[in-house]
Amino acid sequence: MAVIESVDFFYFSMPEVLPIGDGSQDALLVRVRAGQWTGWGECEAAPLPSIASWCCPLSHGACRPVRDSVLGARVDSPAAIRAIGNAVRANSMDLLQADHTLSGIDMALWDLLGKMRGEPAYRLLGYTRAFAKRPYASMLFGDTPEETLAKGRACGLTAAKFGWGPIGKGSPELDAEHFRAAREGLGRYKILLVDIGTAWGDDVERAALALPALEEVKATWLEEPFTSGALAAYKELAGRSTIALAGGEGAHNLDMARHFVDYAGVRFLQIDAGRIGGVSVACDAARYAQARGVRYVNHTFTSHLALAASLAPYAGIESDEICEYPVELQPLAVAITKERLTPGADGLLRLPEAPGYGLTIDVEALQPYCVETEIRVGGRLLYRTPELTQ
Amino acid sequence: MAVIESVDFFYFSMPEVLPIGDGSQDALLVRVRAGQWTGWGECEAAPLPSIASWCCPLSHGACRPVRDSVLGARVDSPAAIRAIGNAVRANSMDLLQADHTLSGIDMALWDLLGKMRGEPAYRLLGYTRAFAKRPYASMLFGDTPEETLAKGRACGLTAAKFGWGPIGKGSPELDAEHFRAAREGLGRYKILLVDIGTAWGDDVERAALALPALEEVKATWLEEPFTSGALAAYKELAGRSTIALAGGEGAHNLDMARHFVDYAGVRFLQIDAGRIGGVSVACDAARYAQARGVRYVNHTFTSHLALAASLAPYAGIESDEICEYPVELQPLAVAITKERLTPGADGLLRLPEAPGYGLTIDVEALQPYCVETEIRVGGRLLYRTPELTQ
Repeated sequence: MAVIESVDFFYFSMPEVLPIGDGSQDALLVRVRAGQWTGWGECEAAPLPSIASWCCPLSHGACRPVRDSVLGARVDSPAAIRAIGNAVRANSMDLLQADHTLSGIDMALWDLLGKMRGEPAYRLLGYTRAFAKRPYASMLFGDTPEETLAKGRACGLTAAKFGWGPIGKGSPELDAEHFRAAREGLGRYKILLVDIGTAWGDDVERAALALPALEEVKATWLEEPFTSGALAAYKELAGRSTIALAGGEGAHNLDMARHFVDYAGVRFLQIDAGRIGGVSVACDAARYAQARGVRYVNHTFTSHLALAASLAPYAGIESDEICEYPVELQPLAVAITKERLTPGADGLLRLPEAPGYGLTIDVEALQPYCVETEIRVGGRLLYRTPELTQ
Repeated sequence: MAVIESVDFFYFSMPEVLPIGDGSQDALLVRVRAGQWTGWGECEAAPLPSIASWCCPLSHGACRPVRDSVLGARVDSPAAIRAIGNAVRANSMDLLQADHTLSGIDMALWDLLGKMRGEPAYRLLGYTRAFAKRPYASMLFGDTPEETLAKGRACGLTAAKFGWGPIGKGSPELDAEHFRAAREGLGRYKILLVDIGTAWGDDVERAALALPALEEVKATWLEEPFTSGALAAYKELAGRSTIALAGGEGAHNLDMARHFVDYAGVRFLQIDAGRIGGVSVACDAARYAQARGVRYVNHTFTSHLALAASLAPYAGIESDEICEYPVELQPLAVAITKERLTPGADGLLRLPEAPGYGLTIDVEALQPYCVETEIRVGGRLLYRTPELTQ
C-alpha cells in the first residue's frame, strides 16, 4: 500500500517579473513521493500564498492546512487520488487558496500513479486513447495593430489566440484594428481566437460593440469578455452573438465550471487544471461539458508539465479538438521539463505515451531560478525551500 | 487628501486550536493608517495565507500582491474605498486568497473613513438610520441530543441557531432527535434555525429526509444543506421544501452572492463580510437581495469587531430583521474589542452611533495571543509581525 510520505513545494521565478499578462514568469512546482515513486505537478500563479495554504496552522475544523488531508494518505488508485481532493475540499473549505494548492498536488498524484502503474495519466482517467489536438498559439496582442500583424505573420501553427495587451481598454475601433491585423497576419484559413482578458467587466453593451468586427474577421470564439462570475452577462451576450463565447479559466472548483456550462451560455469551457483542483476536477468538468454539448479546452499559460497535465483531462474526447499551446514562454518555464510537447508534421499535438505525463523535471536547469523561501510562525519553522532533486 | 500610508496585519491565536466548527480560535486583524486616522478590520480564517497574499512577490499583471493596489491609494470618500476594492479584484484576479485579504482591509477603511468624518460606518454606506436587529445565538449542536437540549434551555436570546457538531453526519433519525431537543430546549416561541454545515454535499434526497422533522419543530430556516457551489441542488430542494433555505457564507465576491439569489432559490442570503471582499461588497449584496425579495443576514463567527462591521452593510434595511450573534466565543475573540455589542432589555441589538464601528481595539488584552510571524522570499524579509499599538 503506497502512502504519501512527502510533498515538497519549489518556488521559481525569472530574475525580473513584469506586470504583463504573461503567466510564465514564475512557477510553483510540487513533488510528491510515495515509496519508490515520485510525481510532479504545478500550481498556477502566486507561489507564496499557495505554499502558505499548505503549511499554515489550523484555524478551525473546516479551515485546516492542505497538508493535513494529504500527508499519509493512500495513493494506489484513481479513487484514492479523488478521495484526497474531496478531503482537502471538506477540511480546507474556508481556506480560499486551498484549491490552487491542491491543483498542483493532484497533478503530481496522477503523474505518480501513472509511473507506479506504467501507464500514461490519461489512461488512468478512463480514456482508452489520446486523440491528437490542434494546438493554437497563445499570444499577447501587440502594443500596436502593426505589432499584432507581425505576430500573426510569424505564427507557425494553424490556429492562434491573441489576448490581453491593449485590447478592450481603448475604443472599439482600435480593438477592431487589432482584430483585422491578427486576421491579416494569420491569413484567411487559420483559426483566429480572441481573448479580452475580462476587460469589459460585465458590460454587455460594450462587448456587443465588438461583435461586428469579430464576425468580419471570422473569429472562432470570443474569450473572457467579462469577469469570471458575470454569468448573466455572458448569457445575455451569448444570445446576441453569432461568435461562440469561451470562458471558465477562473473556475477554482467543479461547481464553478458547471455554472459556466449551465448559466453562461458558453460554447467553449476553458479550464486551468492548475487552478480548478487539479487533473481530477478538470476531467470531471470535461465530461460535464461533453454531456451538454459544450466543447472543453485547456487553459495553460505556463510550462509543458502544466500543458501535458492539462491535456490529460480531455485527451480521450475526440470532439474537443483544439488546445491552448503557449508560444511565448519565459526561459524559466522552458527549463522546467527536459522534454517538450511539440506539434507533429501535421501540425497536431500528441500526448506522450510514457507513464504519468512522460516528462522529466530538469532540476539542473531549474536551479538558477529557485527562490529561497522561509516561513516562521510562533517560533516554528513551517516552511523552508527543500533540496531540489529528482 | 488622505492616502493609505500603512497596512499592518496581526495574527492572533488561542494557545491550542481544535479541529471543531469554531471560527473564533484565531484571528487576523488589519490596521490601516492614513494621516492622523486609523481603522481596524478583520479577515475571516487562515491568517497566514491572507498575510502571504498581501506581501507576496508579483506573479504577472493579473496576479499582483494585494498591497500593490492599496498602499498610497486615496481614502477620502466611499467612492475611493470602492475604487480600492475594484483595483484589488482586477490586479489580483488570479490570486485566489486576495478576496479574503481585501475583506479585512475594506472593513478597516470604512472604520477609518467613519472616524475621519465623525460618522458611523453604516451612514457612509448610505443608510440614514440603523434598525435594531434580532440577534440569534449562534451555537454548535451538542454531541448528544441531551447536550443540545441543555444548550437550548440555557439560551438567553429570543432566537438560536444550532449547527455543525454531529448533525447531518449520522442518520436522519439522530438529526431529528437533535432538532426536537433544540426546539424543546428553546421552548415554543423562540426562533429556531438549523445549520447543516454543508454536510450533505449536493445530495438532495438526503436533505429531503430531514424536511419533515424540520417542519415539525418549526425551523425558520435550513442553512447550508449543501456545499457553497451546489446551486442546482439548493434550487431543487427549495422547490420541495416549505422551510426556507439559507446559504451564501462561502461567497468570496459579489457575483457568487448574486448566484445564490438568482439560481439557488434561497430565501435568506448569508454573507460574511470578512470573506466576500469586505463591507463594500457585503452592502452591494444586501441591496441586490433586497431588490429581489431575499432576506440578508450577516455571517459572523468571530469578534465583535467583525460583528459590528458585518451589521453595517444591512443596518438600514428594516425588513432584514435578524442577525447572527456568536455566543460561544473564545477568550481571544472577546479580547479583541474593549466594548461589546450586547442586546438591550428588549432583546434587540443596536449598532453604536459612534464614528466608524464605534469600537476600540484592546491591544493590551490581545498581546498574549499574538503569533509572531516572519516570511522571507529570495533573501528579502517580506513580512514580520509589526508592533501592536493602537
